[in-house]
Amino acid sequence: MSEYTAPLRDMQFVLNELGHLDQVSGLPDCEEMSPELVEAILGEAGKFASGVLSPLNISGDHEGARWNDGEVSTPTGWKKAYEQFVEGGWNALSCEPEFGGQGLPRLVSALVEEMWNGANVSFGLCPMLTRGAIEAIELRGSAHLKETYLPKMVSGEWTGSMNLTEPQAGSDLAAVRSRAEPQGDGTYRVFGQKIFITYGEHDLTDNIVHLVLARVPGAPDGVKGISLFVVPKFLVNADGSLGARNDVRCVSIEHKLGIHASPTAVLAFGDQGGATGWLVGEENRGLEYMFIMMNAARFSVGIEGIGLSERAYQRALAYARDRVQGGELGVKSRDKVAIIRHPDVRRMLLSMKSRTEAMRALACEVATAMDFAQRHADAEQRQRSQAFVDLMIPVVKGWSTENAIDIASLGVQIHGGMGFIEETGAAQHLRDARITTIYEGTTGIQAADLIGRKIAREDGRTIALVIERMHAVEQQLLNDGDANLQAIGRVLGQGVAALEQAVAFIVREYATQVRQVSVGAVPFLELFGIVAGGWQLARSALVAQQRLRAGSDDPFYRAKLLTAQFYAEHLLPRAGGLAHTVLNGGDAALAFDEEQF
Amino acid sequence: MSEYTAPLRDMQFVLNELGHLDQVSGLPDCEEMSPELVEAILGEAGKFASGVLSPLNISGDHEGARWNDGEVSTPTGWKKAYEQFVEGGWNALSCEPEFGGQGLPRLVSALVEEMWNGANVSFGLCPMLTRGAIEAIELRGSAHLKETYLPKMVSGEWTGSMNLTEPQAGSDLAAVRSRAEPQGDGTYRVFGQKIFITYGEHDLTDNIVHLVLARVPGAPDGVKGISLFVVPKFLVNADGSLGARNDVRCVSIEHKLGIHASPTAVLAFGDQGGATGWLVGEENRGLEYMFIMMNAARFSVGIEGIGLSERAYQRALAYARDRVQGGELGVKSRDKVAIIRHPDVRRMLLSMKSRTEAMRALACEVATAMDFAQRHADAEQRQRSQAFVDLMIPVVKGWSTENAIDIASLGVQIHGGMGFIEETGAAQHLRDARITTIYEGTTGIQAADLIGRKIAREDGRTIALVIERMHAVEQQLLNDGDANLQAIGRVLGQGVAALEQAVAFIVREYATQVRQVSVGAVPFLELFGIVAGGWQLARSALVAQQRLRAGSDDPFYRAKLLTAQFYAEHLLPRAGGLAHTVLNGGDAALAFDEEQF
Repeated sequence: MSEYTAPLRDMQFVLNELGHLDQVSGLPDCEEMSPELVEAILGEAGKFASGVLSPLNISGDHEGARWNDGEVSTPTGWKKAYEQFVEGGWNALSCEPEFGGQGLPRLVSALVEEMWNGANVSFGLCPMLTRGAIEAIELRGSAHLKETYLPKMVSGEWTGSMNLTEPQAGSDLAAVRSRAEPQGDGTYRVFGQKIFITYGEHDLTDNIVHLVLARVPGAPDGVKGISLFVVPKFLVNADGSLGARNDVRCVSIEHKLGIHASPTAVLAFGDQGGATGWLVGEENRGLEYMFIMMNAARFSVGIEGIGLSERAYQRALAYARDRVQGGELGVKSRDKVAIIRHPDVRRMLLSMKSRTEAMRALACEVATAMDFAQRHADAEQRQRSQAFVDLMIPVVKGWSTENAIDIASLGVQIHGGMGFIEETGAAQHLRDARITTIYEGTTGIQAADLIGRKIAREDGRTIALVIERMHAVEQQLLNDGDANLQAIGRVLGQGVAALEQAVAFIVREYATQVRQVSVGAVPFLELFGIVAGGWQLARSALVAQQRLRAGSDDPFYRAKLLTAQFYAEHLLPRAGGLAHTVLNGGDAALAFDEEQF
Repeated sequence: MSEYTAPLRDMQFVLNELGHLDQVSGLPDCEEMSPELVEAILGEAGKFASGVLSPLNISGDHEGARWNDGEVSTPTGWKKAYEQFVEGGWNALSCEPEFGGQGLPRLVSALVEEMWNGANVSFGLCPMLTRGAIEAIELRGSAHLKETYLPKMVSGEWTGSMNLTEPQAGSDLAAVRSRAEPQGDGTYRVFGQKIFITYGEHDLTDNIVHLVLARVPGAPDGVKGISLFVVPKFLVNADGSLGARNDVRCVSIEHKLGIHASPTAVLAFGDQGGATGWLVGEENRGLEYMFIMMNAARFSVGIEGIGLSERAYQRALAYARDRVQGGELGVKSRDKVAIIRHPDVRRMLLSMKSRTEAMRALACEVATAMDFAQRHADAEQRQRSQAFVDLMIPVVKGWSTENAIDIASLGVQIHGGMGFIEETGAAQHLRDARITTIYEGTTGIQAADLIGRKIAREDGRTIALVIERMHAVEQQLLNDGDANLQAIGRVLGQGVAALEQAVAFIVREYATQVRQVSVGAVPFLELFGIVAGGWQLARSALVAQQRLRAGSDDPFYRAKLLTAQFYAEHLLPRAGGLAHTVLNGGDAALAFDEEQF
């Protein structure tokens, strides 16, 4: 059985040759981030991913998490792997040093995160959710909450969970009904049922710190009346030891299409008189805090999509090299060849590979901006970078995850009949990937956020700057003497023009016909993703061509050039049709009466 | 739990208002196919699909087929449902009257087949494979084979299976190694292992008639040395009663992503000295016979895609009407609305609905041509129709099944988090659909067949006639006074132009650069499918507009118009980008060295 291998060469390319690490290591507190140190970190992470997490991926899927009378056991080997994960300090990688974290730049931790997800997405979810909970407490928790919880959560000794969804409140958190009654001693009693809680119950650690959205008495209706609480599974004594079991129970876990090893819990709070909780920040501002974290989580789910895509590609590639079937097309010979020789198999592999590399480069562009937004000395630069991050997060999340589903499905296809057999492993990637366009905000939610808050509300100011950067790359390509680069430049130019046209339409029409424009929101997100990915691969092609001209004989550069060329001819040409749909696709969908469907 | 409902209104529209039934009922032996009789047949079939097959779909998936010591048991209720199926005469619907069949036109039986697949695709596979085996015996079997097997297979008392694949011989049947030794008494001893045998073993009937590809001693290498044999599970005595158990054993069944209730068997022939088999037709011509059947089977798998799409749509629609979440966009109100009010949910529903209706209309166009090819009095017309059928089968198969995966995935997406929970049922459709682009020839195989044998080999003669028919519809739309019809006509025209450009490229370049052209084979198949679907919906829109002008107030016609309009603005605009890929996408994929991937 093939195991995951971290794509270190491409990661190094994005970090060092697209210039991201150079930029980030110039930021305060990042000075020590030399290429050598980062290479060492990624190398170690890659070993952990391949050696510890990847071998548990299929067995974890097969065995799944199991519920028994309120307790949840993770699959065989999970607990030991988690211990090693904590011992290795991996949980603390991107956390603040104040509470024991290593404070690594997001650029670096994003690539490490890609490895956890590539090796074992069900496992990767646990630290991802913990990180979200840590950020909430870091951001707005009292000193007491920080001291009590953060050191153990940063180390990974305890995990965290995010409790948002209720049966009637999924995409619409305004409908949250859980309630929290102040007890006069600084604590609250929390009541309610939460569903879809990832790692809401498990046996990896002694304690779980639930972050819970609930309403205090008299709170306003809707999103402005939601508060955020810390509700630990076990209360914590003053000396840090564990006290009484809190009134939160895992009622069941879900039977899901994928991520079987990741327990998805239904949690009942307060069935025995109220779960003890502590307010985070101020009352009624819970959703605001949640949204700050949610942005980080959305980026992380985008990274999940990239990790899953890489894994699906690696598995399909190994099979395509190994599987002999049929003769070579256009050659007079009876010899059978490996299916990687067949044109259509190449098309599928390169569709997987080119998009995965485009997504990785784009995510790193955004991660770099995250580091700028957080650490840059200049406030204006911080703000500019944050605006870019805010614009791009729905694209990284929505586009990378939609791609991941399609890429995992192509992975199945390359395996032919074997892809449909569960033991092969290709089908698991598709099942696992299928959740990524749903949780932390569906693609529809991402797209609505993108066209509304991120584009129309600011009249397309930030995206105009991105488009400018795209045009600059286009010009470089067109001005190059190489015919292949020029060809990429022309198709990129057409893609950017389609994007500009769609942006202009959105900016112009959003205020007066928001419903029509919204029918095109997801097509627009796809359009933006495709063109942004093309921009990144075009940049990569320019660098690769430069290296080859300088005499490098590293086959990586030739492959990168061809990958960018493939993407330009197979993905970018979709832009024009998508722009047409954005501009013209609203009327019929809205004219339908509900009964007519 | 919602059950499947046969889309009778749309089926009637396609049959009667697009003119297909009228054409078919003019053929010899089809005179009695009045709209009333067909309506009665479809109505009864719809009841059986909803009332008997649909309720077993989720439980069948959950329970799955089970193997125990060579025997396979189908899920609870399966045996009874199959008995009712046989008693109702459904198995005999499209079979020749000579052996007890009802000889219904393919046009009608295709729609009935869609219902079986919509209600329960795992169940539908059993009669589908039986039909394939029946056709093989009808086509080339000796009188003895026909008399011995056909009456019981036509009635459904015995089922059939198709044994092609071996571990080393999947898409490439030239690699078949199973062998058959003549015994001098007209029988052969068959040895070998076959995999992926749908309903290769089960408990629904007393006997199973395996059609098996194997090589006789001294047969030429490759595809020209493969013969076809009948190998029954139980030998049949002269009086028709069952005799000894034959030497074929079910070694195991596969653990699959979907179609869990349909047993996929590994069959070992000849472990005890040789399975007794009877040659079908002549030695070494087995693949030729198989291919005739395969065409029918490919069409049937396309129909599977349509049935699954319809079912996924119905489930998503029911959920979208029921699920209340969020307020109405662009309206100042705190009222929550059903998610069918949200623009992006409408987009997804209409993407599902418009493609499903386009696929159904296209499949019926092809089914009508099948009936013409088989029954028309004029030989030239038979030939023309057969050419059209041959051209379109890879499109019906490839495009309908690729769509089915995407449509089932959209169905999951509309359910949000609930879609990922297995109990909801939406995920099952995606798992079930995922096999349809693989079996009976992958999409890559369909596309290679399409551009090579069906287009390049005859210089695009048949597709040129199809394009002419498309242009005629385009003209009708452009000449209509209605602005919406004109708009559809313009986008259709652009799509057809893109298709023409791609066809010209294939015809021109196939002979000299088959590998480059083949990189674009699947994009071309998608392009052809999208434009052909647009053609069919455009025809439908013209009819609907006519009815509305004539004063009809049936909301079906307004919906049909809007559906065609939606398709024109959301699907057809992809044509241009796909044509670009066909024309320009070959080089990079082929320039890659194998090590560079």
